[in-house]
Amino acid sequence: MEVKRVAALRAFATDKMKKVSLFETRRFFCDLYCFEPGQVQKGHVHQGEDKVYFVLEGRGRFTVGREEAELCAMEATVAPAGVEHGVLNGGPGRLVVLVFMAPHPSPKG
Amino acid sequence: MEVKRVAALRAFATDKMKKVSLFETRRFFCDLYCFEPGQVQKGHVHQGEDKVYFVLEGRGRFTVGREEAELCAMEATVAPAGVEHGVLNGGPGRLVVLVFMAPHPSPKG
Repeated sequence: MEVKRVAALRAFATDKMKKVSLFETRRFFCDLYCFEPGQVQKGHVHQGEDKVYFVLEGRGRFTVGREEAELCAMEATVAPAGVEHGVLNGGPGRLVVLVFMAPHPSPKG
Repeated sequence: MEVKRVAALRAFATDKMKKVSLFETRRFFCDLYCFEPGQVQKGHVHQGEDKVYFVLEGRGRFTVGREEAELCAMEATVAPAGVEHGVLNGGPGRLVVLVFMAPHPSPKG
């Protein structure tokens, strides 16, 4: 049984937002995205995958399509396939986001 | 842009565990499962879908296959397709779990 103690898995990098894999199967992946103040996930599009962003800690500015929203802990949004999306941690604190994507864009095996 | 303020969406029922839908597409669903003390999600199997359980609040006993683990807030596990899984809130507090399943077992449209 695969158990993840997520608080202990948070990890940050000075150069860019850090991704930490929690679970992945051929059907989905679930990651932590850990942002220092000022770090971003630049706007991008997945043609065939949907993504959920669920904020665990801190506060960030999320863009989905032409809309933006400031989300804090226990707030979430979804970026459907084909819709541009990105994240900015405008600071001053760290931002930790739980990310689900389905299907897995590059499944193993 | 679909935003969910999850803390405000928690909902409990006296007769059984309450499911609250957060997001769904044809590729996945994301729900809250809200358990009063003593409530369960009985053991069951999905033949073609994987499920993540991510504890947001409280503490519960999770079973995946033949293994069990007590998980509390910020702890998570995965139930792969074909593996029996279930949850018990042994109390004394409430248990709130974020659930992600992919693919959606009964997609709309």
